[in-house]
Amino acid sequence: MRIIGIDPGTIVTGIGIIECFEGKLKMIDCDVILNNSKIPLSDRLKKIYDICTLKINKYSPQEFAIETAFYGKNIQSTLKIGQARGVAIISAANARLNISEYSPREIKQSVSGSGASNKEIVRNFVKKILNIKTDPKFFDSTDALAVALCHYFSLTNNIYLSKYKTSKNFNWKDFIENNPERIVK
Amino acid sequence: MRIIGIDPGTIVTGIGIIECFEGKLKMIDCDVILNNSKIPLSDRLKKIYDICTLKINKYSPQEFAIETAFYGKNIQSTLKIGQARGVAIISAANARLNISEYSPREIKQSVSGSGASNKEIVRNFVKKILNIKTDPKFFDSTDALAVALCHYFSLTNNIYLSKYKTSKNFNWKDFIENNPERIVK
Repeated sequence: MRIIGIDPGTIVTGIGIIECFEGKLKMIDCDVILNNSKIPLSDRLKKIYDICTLKINKYSPQEFAIETAFYGKNIQSTLKIGQARGVAIISAANARLNISEYSPREIKQSVSGSGASNKEIVRNFVKKILNIKTDPKFFDSTDALAVALCHYFSLTNNIYLSKYKTSKNFNWKDFIENNPERIVK
Repeated sequence: MRIIGIDPGTIVTGIGIIECFEGKLKMIDCDVILNNSKIPLSDRLKKIYDICTLKINKYSPQEFAIETAFYGKNIQSTLKIGQARGVAIISAANARLNISEYSPREIKQSVSGSGASNKEIVRNFVKKILNIKTDPKFFDSTDALAVALCHYFSLTNNIYLSKYKTSKNFNWKDFIENNPERIVK
């Protein structure tokens, strides 16, 4: 199974694609769509749509996951993120992928064990889980991989995480100790 | 020349198509895309995309005009409108139409002579200009025609409106008296 994760934005959109084969996770692609705020909005949205469509055609994921918007105070930024989200979602809907959404808190919680983790911590967990040796240039690309991972953990909830998640004492240290096969070496 | 105008929303999206041939304006289509708030967001966005694409393929407009979002106080509504806008814009960008945006104030000013006109006044002006005899069920559809008309008036600014718009004393009564050929009978 392949999952494409998207961290949307009109200036930088993160794209991450992971593969889960026989319980092993692998990064397939980790990229960003860069836009210039000086070009017309429709051109920026078209670039997001075209590159998302291209990645979907190239890597054939079955699942699409996207970060829900951060409800910030700036209403104009929210509108712009909304537009980028709509366009990314439609690229997946046109390819008939299953579409799921996760809040930033759910994504951080799922990948790092805490919904309050900062970007560096999330990146480090993503790198460990997917055995990535280098530091991608943009946090947006590792954030997108985190979205894809969050969706994977959500789909495989019963197998991997349910007994931990339902426990009040759930923590990642225990989970890793009890699931040594889940550590990518 | 044909212009498609869009008044975007995730529950009701207005679509209006007008034709301007030898200075005469005609309504080609006036419709709404209705969505149910209970169905998943991606399905709602896909419906907007599919129907916009269908209308563009059916009526072959060259120009696409859309209302810029109203920056209301509700940030969640703004996000939703942003998503609907992004999807409508991408349907036009994929068909390689020229894309223009107008604020609600510009649209009202252009069609009714006042940026503060209410929906009824805008509808009445749209009906007069396009010689529409019936009352379309949704204001969103006449609002979409108003967006298309606003774009037409903007494109033909030099011919029809410039001498009035630059005058502080511009009013529609004078304009109509001086341009009797512009009245659709």
